[in-house]
Amino acid sequence: MRIAVLGCGRIGRMHAANLLRHADTSLATVYDIHEPSAQEVASAMGVAAAGAPEEVFAAADVDAVLVATATETHADYIEMAVAAGKPVLCEKPIDLDLARVNRCAETIAGSDIPVQIGFNRRFDPGHRSAREAVAKGEIGDLHQVIITSRDPEMPPRAYYEVAGGLLRDMTIHDFDLARYMLGDEPVEVLAVADRLIDPALMSELDDHDTAMIILRTADGKQCHINNSRTAAYGYDQRVELMGTRGMVVSDNRRRHELRQYSAAETEGAAPYLYFFIERYQEAFMAEIGAFVTSIKAGTPPEVGFEDGRRALILAEAAYRSIKERRAVRVEEIQ
Amino acid sequence: MRIAVLGCGRIGRMHAANLLRHADTSLATVYDIHEPSAQEVASAMGVAAAGAPEEVFAAADVDAVLVATATETHADYIEMAVAAGKPVLCEKPIDLDLARVNRCAETIAGSDIPVQIGFNRRFDPGHRSAREAVAKGEIGDLHQVIITSRDPEMPPRAYYEVAGGLLRDMTIHDFDLARYMLGDEPVEVLAVADRLIDPALMSELDDHDTAMIILRTADGKQCHINNSRTAAYGYDQRVELMGTRGMVVSDNRRRHELRQYSAAETEGAAPYLYFFIERYQEAFMAEIGAFVTSIKAGTPPEVGFEDGRRALILAEAAYRSIKERRAVRVEEIQ
Amino acid sequence: MRIAVLGCGRIGRMHAANLLRHADTSLATVYDIHEPSAQEVASAMGVAAAGAPEEVFAAADVDAVLVATATETHADYIEMAVAAGKPVLCEKPIDLDLARVNRCAETIAGSDIPVQIGFNRRFDPGHRSAREAVAKGEIGDLHQVIITSRDPEMPPRAYYEVAGGLLRDMTIHDFDLARYMLGDEPVEVLAVADRLIDPALMSELDDHDTAMIILRTADGKQCHINNSRTAAYGYDQRVELMGTRGMVVSDNRRRHELRQYSAAETEGAAPYLYFFIERYQEAFMAEIGAFVTSIKAGTPPEVGFEDGRRALILAEAAYRSIKERRAVRVEEIQ
Amino acid sequence: MRIAVLGCGRIGRMHAANLLRHADTSLATVYDIHEPSAQEVASAMGVAAAGAPEEVFAAADVDAVLVATATETHADYIEMAVAAGKPVLCEKPIDLDLARVNRCAETIAGSDIPVQIGFNRRFDPGHRSAREAVAKGEIGDLHQVIITSRDPEMPPRAYYEVAGGLLRDMTIHDFDLARYMLGDEPVEVLAVADRLIDPALMSELDDHDTAMIILRTADGKQCHINNSRTAAYGYDQRVELMGTRGMVVSDNRRRHELRQYSAAETEGAAPYLYFFIERYQEAFMAEIGAFVTSIKAGTPPEVGFEDGRRALILAEAAYRSIKERRAVRVEEIQ
Repeated sequence: MRIAVLGCGRIGRMHAANLLRHADTSLATVYDIHEPSAQEVASAMGVAAAGAPEEVFAAADVDAVLVATATETHADYIEMAVAAGKPVLCEKPIDLDLARVNRCAETIAGSDIPVQIGFNRRFDPGHRSAREAVAKGEIGDLHQVIITSRDPEMPPRAYYEVAGGLLRDMTIHDFDLARYMLGDEPVEVLAVADRLIDPALMSELDDHDTAMIILRTADGKQCHINNSRTAAYGYDQRVELMGTRGMVVSDNRRRHELRQYSAAETEGAAPYLYFFIERYQEAFMAEIGAFVTSIKAGTPPEVGFEDGRRALILAEAAYRSIKERRAVRVEEIQ
Repeated sequence: MRIAVLGCGRIGRMHAANLLRHADTSLATVYDIHEPSAQEVASAMGVAAAGAPEEVFAAADVDAVLVATATETHADYIEMAVAAGKPVLCEKPIDLDLARVNRCAETIAGSDIPVQIGFNRRFDPGHRSAREAVAKGEIGDLHQVIITSRDPEMPPRAYYEVAGGLLRDMTIHDFDLARYMLGDEPVEVLAVADRLIDPALMSELDDHDTAMIILRTADGKQCHINNSRTAAYGYDQRVELMGTRGMVVSDNRRRHELRQYSAAETEGAAPYLYFFIERYQEAFMAEIGAFVTSIKAGTPPEVGFEDGRRALILAEAAYRSIKERRAVRVEEIQ
Repeated sequence: MRIAVLGCGRIGRMHAANLLRHADTSLATVYDIHEPSAQEVASAMGVAAAGAPEEVFAAADVDAVLVATATETHADYIEMAVAAGKPVLCEKPIDLDLARVNRCAETIAGSDIPVQIGFNRRFDPGHRSAREAVAKGEIGDLHQVIITSRDPEMPPRAYYEVAGGLLRDMTIHDFDLARYMLGDEPVEVLAVADRLIDPALMSELDDHDTAMIILRTADGKQCHINNSRTAAYGYDQRVELMGTRGMVVSDNRRRHELRQYSAAETEGAAPYLYFFIERYQEAFMAEIGAFVTSIKAGTPPEVGFEDGRRALILAEAAYRSIKERRAVRVEEIQ
Repeated sequence: MRIAVLGCGRIGRMHAANLLRHADTSLATVYDIHEPSAQEVASAMGVAAAGAPEEVFAAADVDAVLVATATETHADYIEMAVAAGKPVLCEKPIDLDLARVNRCAETIAGSDIPVQIGFNRRFDPGHRSAREAVAKGEIGDLHQVIITSRDPEMPPRAYYEVAGGLLRDMTIHDFDLARYMLGDEPVEVLAVADRLIDPALMSELDDHDTAMIILRTADGKQCHINNSRTAAYGYDQRVELMGTRGMVVSDNRRRHELRQYSAAETEGAAPYLYFFIERYQEAFMAEIGAFVTSIKAGTPPEVGFEDGRRALILAEAAYRSIKERRAVRVEEIQ
C-alpha cells in the first residue's frame, strides 16, 4: 500500500516514518506548502516530494493519502481525496467550523471511499483493552467513565493562535474517547473551563488551559473529562471504566520501570513518557494498520468522518455550556 | 476526658469502643432511644446506660458528648449540649433541612463551646498528608481536585427512607472533603445524578445511586466528585490533587499486601478494606483526638458547625443544578 | 483468659497492651527483674506487679504466661511454666545454646501443656495469605521462596552484646518463615555473612550485619534469605513464593497510601511502617488469638517448641557453612 | 555502517531487522549454514545472501559483523573477524569450553579490533538506570544485589542438547549482569541447582531447570541470583540493588498498563512481555548503538571479550560449587 503524506510538520514526519516502518505500507511521496520542508523530509525518507496536492491526488502510484496539514485544509483535502477515489486518513479535527464539516459531509455523502479520522487513542493497547473488557462484560454494565487528559507542557503562542480553542483542539480527543468508551452517544454536556496556567495569554486569546466536563448518555451513563495544558509529572493519559461487576483502568506508561527507595520515599517511579509521539507510538502504528485493513477489506474505517463530526459537536455543546452556564442538550447543536 | 455517647447503632458502638481505646478518653455513659440497645452496649463496655438525653447533658461526670443518633435529633442535641456547656462531636449531617441548620446556628451563636461535626475523612492519614503536601507548596498552585467516593454495597431500603437523598447523605462527606482540599469555598456547582444500580427503588424513593459533580472556586480551581452506591471491588476512596508543580494522590487501602501472579495476570492485589469502619479506623481515632485537643486547648474544632452547614449548602446547590439543568451559584442557596 | 507477662521491656509492654486490647484476654500481672519497670507497667495497665516469677507460676488467677524476658531465662521459664501446668507463649529464641534447648525439650517431653514460640510473622495477614495460596494450590507446586528481611536501623551496642549473633537473633525469624512457607524441612544450608554497615563494631563483637543464605529441601525446593541490619527506606519484610502455575508476593506496608508526582518522578509512596511493632501489629494480636485457641481447644500451638528448636538448628547450620565455606547438611547439627 | 549478520535463526533475524531499523546501520549481507534460511532472510530484507563466512569477512563493503550462529562457531568467527580487521558483535556465550575461550583470547590478544559480546541486558533502560543510580551514589554504598531471572517457558529438547547447561546458557546473562551491577569482581560462588520442572528430561540430559546462586566480592558485597526455566506469569527479569542510603529496583514491563478490579481483586495487571525479543527490544537496539559508537570512536566495547570470559568462569565456578557442595573461589577456575 503506497501512501502519500500531506504536511511535513512534526506529526506528518512521524506518520511518514511510521509508514516506512509498517510492514504493510510504503511512503509514496510527501507534500508541504512550505517546499523546503517537503524536500527535507522527502530526502531523508528516500522519496520524491510532490509539487502540489493535486499532483498527489492524481498520481497513479498513490494508493491512499494521509493528511497532516493545517486544520483549515483538512476538509478540502478530504473532498479532493474522495473525488479522486483515494482513501484518506486525516488528522483531527476535520475543521474548526461545524458548518464547514457539515458541508464536507454532504459533499462526500454516498461515497464508499474510506475516510478515517486520526483519533489515534482508540488504538492504544491499554485503552483498547479497557474497551474490550467492557464489551466482553468483564465489568458488567458500564456506569461511569473518568478520562484524565493532561498535556505535559504549554504549546507555543503560535500554536494557540490557530488551534481553535482548548476544547476543539485538545479535548476533542477525549470527546471521541468518551464516545468510544461509553459505546453510546452522550446527549447532555456540562462544562467549566478556566485560565489557571497562563491567565494573561489565555485571556488575550479568549482561550482556556484547564477544563472539567460531564457527559451523560440517554440511559444515564456518566462520563467525566478533565484537561490541563500542563502536568509537571508528564503526559497524563488515563481512562477509568466502572461498572456493576468491576472496574478497568488504562494507566500511564513510562520509559522504563525503575523504582527508587530512600529515607524519604518508596517505589518512586520514572516520569511518564513525555508526549503523544512516545506515549501513543503503538497507537499510531495500529491506526495505520486499521486504515490498511479498511481499504483492503472494503469495510468502513473504525473511526470515520461521522466520528470526527460528532466529537466536534460535543466540543460545541461544551462551549455553549461554558458560555450559558447550563447543561446543554447535544441535539441543540446542529 | 469522660465522653458520653448518644446513639447505640453501628456507628455509636464504634465510637464507644474507640473512646475506650483512645489514650485520652474514657466512656462516661451511653444512651439510645431503644433502651435494650443502650443496655447491651453499656454492659459490653462496662458503663451504666443513661435513661434520657437530659440526664446525660446534666451529668457532672460527663465532660463531653458524642452524638450518633438519628439525623433528625442532631440539631436538638447540639443545642442541648451547648446550653449545658458540654462540648459536642456530632455525626454528619447536622440536619437534612437547611432552615433547621440555620436556626441551630442562630441558637448556638456566640457560644464558644466546641461543636465538632463528624467529617472523619479529613483525619485520614493519607487524605491529610495530601492536604498537607498542598499546604507546604509541594505541588505548587492547586488547579484540579478529583474525589472518587464509591460505597461497596447498597444500604437496605430502610436506610434510604431516612437518609435524605444521595447528596445529603453520602456526597456530603465529599463536599466537605472538597472544601478541605481546595482550601477555598466553591462558588458554583454543576451536577448530574442518575438511577443506574436499582432504578425501580430509586424512582420510588425519588433518590439517586450514581452522581457526578463539578465545583468551582472564585479563582477557577476545579473539583470533580464521582459517587456510586456500589463498587464491586470494594470501598473506593481516592483523592487526587493536581497543581502547577506536581500531583498527590491519596489512594485506597487493603487488609494486606499480597500480590498474585498467574498466566492470566500480574500484581493482582487483595480487595480494598470493606467499608468506612475499617477504611477510616485511624481517621475515627484521630477525630476523637482532635476533639479532645480542641476542648483542652480551648481552640475551635478543626471541623466545626459552619463546616457542616457549608457542606449541606453545597448539597442543596447540587440538587438545584440537577433539577434545573444549570450551573448553580452557591450564593443562591440561603 | 488471664495472662501474665514476664519481662517489661519494649516487647513485654507491647504484649501487655495487646492482652488488654484483645477481646479474649486480660492482663493478670506483670513481672520484671528490674522492679521499677514492672511497677511502672503494672501501674499504667491497672494490674499488680508480681515480686518473683515463682509467684506468677503459682498464682491461681493466672491462666497462662507470656515470656518476654532476656533470652537466657527463656528455657527456665518454659520449664517452670510446664511444671506449673500453665500454657506459655515465649518470645524467640528459646536459647542461644542448642544444647540448652535440647535439655529443655527433654525436660518438658511428654507434657501436653501448650508451649508456643513467638514467631509472630507466621500470623501476618499477608504472609499467611501467601502460605494459604500455596496450600490451596493456587501457584501449583512450590519451587522457589525468596525472603527479604531487613531491619530499618542498627540496634545499640548493648543489644548486640547479648543477642547471640545476627543469625540466632534476626535471621531466626526468617528460618522459621522459610520452614512455614516451604511446608517442608530444609536439609541443606549455604550461607555468607559480612560486616558492611559497621565493620569495626561487627569485628570487635565477632558479629555480622549483612547475610545471604540458601536453603534446600530434600526434594529440591529452594529458599533464599537476605538480611541487612539497616534499610534506609524502612523495615523491609517481603516473601515471594514461585510455583509451577504462578507466584504470590507478600509485600511491605505503609502508614498511608499517598503517592507523589513531580517533574522528577511518579507514584512516589510513603516510607514503610517503621519497625516490627507497627508492621506486625496485626500479627502480634493474631498470635495471642492462636495461643488462646490452642489453650481452649487443647490443640498443639501452631508454632510449637520444636519449631523454635528447628529454627535454631538452621542458624547453627548456617554458622557452620559460613565458617567452613561449604554446604552444610542440617542433619550434621545435633 | 554496513553490518553483516552470520546466522539466520530467530535471534539472527531479529538482529538483521534491528540493523535495518537502526538509524546508524544498514544490513550488508546475511549468511547461514542452512542456505535456504539465509536466502529467505536475505530476500525478506532486500540484501544478497553470502555463500560462505569467508566471503563475508573478505567483503570490502562489510564494515562489521554480527555473529548469531551456533555457539560452537562463535570463537572461530571472532578469530576470523579480528584477523580480517572487522569489528564483531558476537552473541553469548563465546564458547561452552573455557579452554577454547582462553585460546581465542590468546589468538586475538593485542588486536584493537572491537569485539563486543551480546550481553544485551546491560543496555536495558531500566537496568542501566539502576546501575547509573548506584554510580551516582543515589543509594550510597552498594551492599546487596538480587537478580531474578526466569524464562516464561521451557525450550524444546533440541535446544537443551546444545545449550551447554542451565548456567552456561541462561545464568550466564545473570553472571554478567551481576558483575555489571556490582561494579566489581565476585571472588566466591555458592550454588544449588535442581530438576523441578521436568525431572526426567533434566536427569537424562544431566541438566537443571532451577537454580539459586550467591556471589561475593572481595569486600563482602553480596549478590543473589535465582533462575527458573519457566514462569507461568511471564518472563521475569528483575534487578534489585540495596545500599546504605536506599534501594533501586528495575522491574518487569508489560505490553500495556490495564488494571482490573473485581470482587476478587484490585489492580490486576496484564502479563509481562512474553520473552527476550519483546522485553529487551530497546536493549537490543541500544546494543547496536553501542557497537557503532565503539567502532566510530575507536573505544573498547562496553561489553568486551573479557566480560564474556569472566561470565563463563563464574558459570564454571558455580558448577564446581554444585558438584562439590562448597563455596568455590573464583580464582580456582582457570
